[in-house]
Amino acid sequence: MRELTMRDVGDIARGAAILGAGGGGDPHIGRLLAQAALDTYGPVRLESLAHIPDDAVVVPVAMMGAPTVVLEKFPSVEQVGHAVEALATYRGRSATHIACIEAGGINSLIPVAAAAQLGLPLIDADGMGRAFPELQMVLPALRGIQASPMSITDEKGNCQVIETIDNHWAERLARAATIDMGCSTTVSLYGMTGSEARSSLVNGTLSLCAELGRLVARAGEGSTPADAVASRLRGQRVFDGKVVDVARRTEQGFARGEAIIKGLDHDASSRLTIAFQNENLIAKRDGVVVATVPDLICILDRETGEAITTETLRYGQRITVLVAPADPRWHTPDGLALVGPRAFGYELAL
Amino acid sequence: MRELTMRDVGDIARGAAILGAGGGGDPHIGRLLAQAALDTYGPVRLESLAHIPDDAVVVPVAMMGAPTVVLEKFPSVEQVGHAVEALATYRGRSATHIACIEAGGINSLIPVAAAAQLGLPLIDADGMGRAFPELQMVLPALRGIQASPMSITDEKGNCQVIETIDNHWAERLARAATIDMGCSTTVSLYGMTGSEARSSLVNGTLSLCAELGRLVARAGEGSTPADAVASRLRGQRVFDGKVVDVARRTEQGFARGEAIIKGLDHDASSRLTIAFQNENLIAKRDGVVVATVPDLICILDRETGEAITTETLRYGQRITVLVAPADPRWHTPDGLALVGPRAFGYELAL
Repeated sequence: MRELTMRDVGDIARGAAILGAGGGGDPHIGRLLAQAALDTYGPVRLESLAHIPDDAVVVPVAMMGAPTVVLEKFPSVEQVGHAVEALATYRGRSATHIACIEAGGINSLIPVAAAAQLGLPLIDADGMGRAFPELQMVLPALRGIQASPMSITDEKGNCQVIETIDNHWAERLARAATIDMGCSTTVSLYGMTGSEARSSLVNGTLSLCAELGRLVARAGEGSTPADAVASRLRGQRVFDGKVVDVARRTEQGFARGEAIIKGLDHDASSRLTIAFQNENLIAKRDGVVVATVPDLICILDRETGEAITTETLRYGQRITVLVAPADPRWHTPDGLALVGPRAFGYELAL
Repeated sequence: MRELTMRDVGDIARGAAILGAGGGGDPHIGRLLAQAALDTYGPVRLESLAHIPDDAVVVPVAMMGAPTVVLEKFPSVEQVGHAVEALATYRGRSATHIACIEAGGINSLIPVAAAAQLGLPLIDADGMGRAFPELQMVLPALRGIQASPMSITDEKGNCQVIETIDNHWAERLARAATIDMGCSTTVSLYGMTGSEARSSLVNGTLSLCAELGRLVARAGEGSTPADAVASRLRGQRVFDGKVVDVARRTEQGFARGEAIIKGLDHDASSRLTIAFQNENLIAKRDGVVVATVPDLICILDRETGEAITTETLRYGQRITVLVAPADPRWHTPDGLALVGPRAFGYELAL
């Protein structure tokens, strides 16, 4: 257990944006939000998953909506704490620990802001080991833990609590509410006990984010950041190129689209296309699939190694594309049913 | 205080459909729902508004959505009780009394079903003295009582609780949720104390509904039911005719449209057009406005005196149109701002 510093928060944001695989939100906004919360409310203790009491009341909190919208409509620190408290009001019990539901430039930092505001410890873990766009797409769901009751808040002060018959209804009603509340909200969901957290979360995610962030920050001192990141994630560098087209639309509450990357250097004769729904879903090199969900398809700035999220991808960027393996639980039949290519409407022979 | 019988419920449904002014739901569905609840859960005590303790926890419950949809997707008795209980869970206190938020063929009977299921007394009153389509359009709102926190349930078992910064956000978010839950839901809202109920509700509405229902049921024994109803409501018979056109669409969660009525007998040379949004809003005779909200524009079957709601209006029906004055609080400047023609988008010189 240790206290998070302002510098940790910067590192976590930078590293989480890589694990976000295109999604999970812009790390600059995530960092500003968490630093403002630390500044106002004081420090946050990071607690190891192994040390959580069995009967802890673990409450994850995250942003929901289209990351394209978050660039214009920032979440407030208050709406984050409000989400956790609205859920506590409905459940009749308060959170003892805050958790991350996914890794991402905003979604690993929203829980830092909540923990600071509420004076609660934050668990060094997350619910995916990456980011996914829909709320049923989390590892706790594979263990039968329900998303609802869940809360939804906006920056105006409105709040909703949803309790549904299954996770698909939770996704459907929460998405409709999010769209009506302005396409970007804070949600608190998948409340679970300490023992459920230990059996269903990915251990050590925030520490890994901080480590990746430091690898990138140290770039330029002889090592290539993309290679260092790929090595740490046991992944590989699959493409280097220049973004030559981005078709992006904010629809049904998501940032959806496709990017085309023209190869450079040893990839000069090739093109890579990447389809995304908040997160990068499928990468094809000259028409041949080279990577798909659930594995991580990460786009990094070729010089600095900083992650480029789908909402900030634009013409002319020089990028490196990495592919890294997802948590092995995502490769089980149940995991693939929830987040494999078919769950996103792609019929691929793999 | 007395117990409601199966026969009372039939009379209330018939009379409430008249006060519904085109809206408030189909009285046959309302009657079946309330009778099923009485049959399963036992009797309901009707309590006078004057006798409610000051600190009573008064909880209104109603149907929300498009009455056109309710004809195909009936509410269940269980979703009605579920709405009251979900709100109690969130507020941390249980209802002591159930109330009607509006008068209508379904919305005066849903509270009967809730009271039976939960074993609570029902208050002989309502929040409008008629029906209106949007949830901010209630007399308690004129006294500063807030719609939220409010609950929303569907027949599948899903539930939401909404707490908003004002009644317009409550209407907006609840409407979006209702549309996504299938265009017809049960809501529990405007929770208030006993003293707030006394100062803001319309007294004696259920007794009046039962009385109107009996007037209609006794029709054909020498008196014209429409005249008897008009006289009891201090209104007047404004038109007799045949429905020659109904343009109706279910949009944005409402039943909206317009009906054209060709005059019969002394009205034979005229046409009446009625615009509606769940409820009848404006009546024009040969292009001249003869009645508008907030006053009640009621369409009755010319022979039987039974109310015809906007969703069951159809070509060929022989009807009598009555106009009756609304509760005087609706004619104050604040009342007109909330439910006058302009609140529905009509710019009329009155």
